[in-house]
Amino acid sequence: MIGIFDSGVGGLTVMRAITRAIPHVPIVYFGDTARLPYGDKSPEAIRQYSRENTQFLVQQNVGIIVIACHTASALALHVLKQEFKVPIVGVIDPAVCQAVAATRNGRIAVLATRGTIASGVYQKALLQQSASAHVVPIACPLFVPLVEERLENHEATRLIVRDYLALAKCERVDTVILGCTHYPLLAAMIQRELGEDVVLVDSAEACARQLGPLMSQTCGIEHPTAHRFFVSDDPDRFRVMGERILGTAISFVQSSN
Amino acid sequence: MIGIFDSGVGGLTVMRAITRAIPHVPIVYFGDTARLPYGDKSPEAIRQYSRENTQFLVQQNVGIIVIACHTASALALHVLKQEFKVPIVGVIDPAVCQAVAATRNGRIAVLATRGTIASGVYQKALLQQSASAHVVPIACPLFVPLVEERLENHEATRLIVRDYLALAKCERVDTVILGCTHYPLLAAMIQRELGEDVVLVDSAEACARQLGPLMSQTCGIEHPTAHRFFVSDDPDRFRVMGERILGTAISFVQSSN
Repeated sequence: MIGIFDSGVGGLTVMRAITRAIPHVPIVYFGDTARLPYGDKSPEAIRQYSRENTQFLVQQNVGIIVIACHTASALALHVLKQEFKVPIVGVIDPAVCQAVAATRNGRIAVLATRGTIASGVYQKALLQQSASAHVVPIACPLFVPLVEERLENHEATRLIVRDYLALAKCERVDTVILGCTHYPLLAAMIQRELGEDVVLVDSAEACARQLGPLMSQTCGIEHPTAHRFFVSDDPDRFRVMGERILGTAISFVQSSN
Repeated sequence: MIGIFDSGVGGLTVMRAITRAIPHVPIVYFGDTARLPYGDKSPEAIRQYSRENTQFLVQQNVGIIVIACHTASALALHVLKQEFKVPIVGVIDPAVCQAVAATRNGRIAVLATRGTIASGVYQKALLQQSASAHVVPIACPLFVPLVEERLENHEATRLIVRDYLALAKCERVDTVILGCTHYPLLAAMIQRELGEDVVLVDSAEACARQLGPLMSQTCGIEHPTAHRFFVSDDPDRFRVMGERILGTAISFVQSSN
């Protein structure tokens, strides 16, 4: 059984990618909706929230934990790995591996929340994998609220995408990491702005791909059962946006309290 | 001594209005930055957070409490009034009084977060004050992130303002309540979109004006002392945005933990 936690619904993009890559494993998803968003909280707060979320998933008897939230992956993964025995996977390393493999000119942009960019975690991981990489970090704090308002195709979003990506174009990057759970929903607009030659790395898909081999080591083959969803705030709000992201019905969302 | 609480820095627009209206009263400001924003949390969560914030301010020996957050005013004021002895004032009733006094055609729009609009509190309060009022509630969830990104004058913001206000224009409102702490920072753009004939009601100013008479009843005259600032997350993040809103230096922000 795989446990996934995120600050809210965005991590369902990761769950969607995992269910496509490994269809027969049941998932327990926890969205910390009472304390979202993580992107503009302090590192100390994010570490404490992540610790509590991990504890909750461990109590649900999961065999492996995926941190779907980029901010939490950036700021809490190394701490949680020291504190818990269960294997824990973040969304950053898989995306970094894929970006390094994809780039031809070594120029890679990272789009992420302010918190993730400020942590420097993507920049550090990219340089560890490829010392000659030229990394262009770009904070895009408006992408999440624009997606949550369903403005993926709005002219205002196009203007903001253009503003945020001006540096990436100027720096002639050929690979772009979508470093936040919501950003895959803007992939079409980002691709149009950058042109078809630029490779977009969807970190949800990269993470799901890395999980396959790990699963066979830690969990064995399980019988398919219904996935379970928990949130720390109102379950109904989660379900509406959640079904839109996941693309399937969510029959029941439980409160974690 | 006045206690003010808000989910973050936005309530400093209310503090600014109060210090202009009543210059000699010291203020204790509490920003619940670890749990912001309140706009998309459930009523139960907002009531519990508001209860804890009020408790904290009572411990600081304030003589009156102002709920600067519109969402918390909408959802928690009546509960807090039952549970605490200290006088508590929200930002909604003062704005409603001023809007009812200002309108000539009885058609009033309310711009606010999704939570405030969904609560129906403005709509109910306006109809209580003026049974014949025609109220146009408009949720504007992107205004706060746009202001926090300092895009008050960006073309994308103008397009989103235009979208949000289309209904207000169509409904020929002559008075608009800015029903969220951040919205006064978009007043110029909103006024341009609606035209000079439309009256904008700044709820921070309306609240400060109502506080004057209440203060003389409850607190007496006090000697001016330095204001104090507390937050539940990282103090430094609060100071930068806070000084921009308040227009003066904030020398020291304390952690409430």
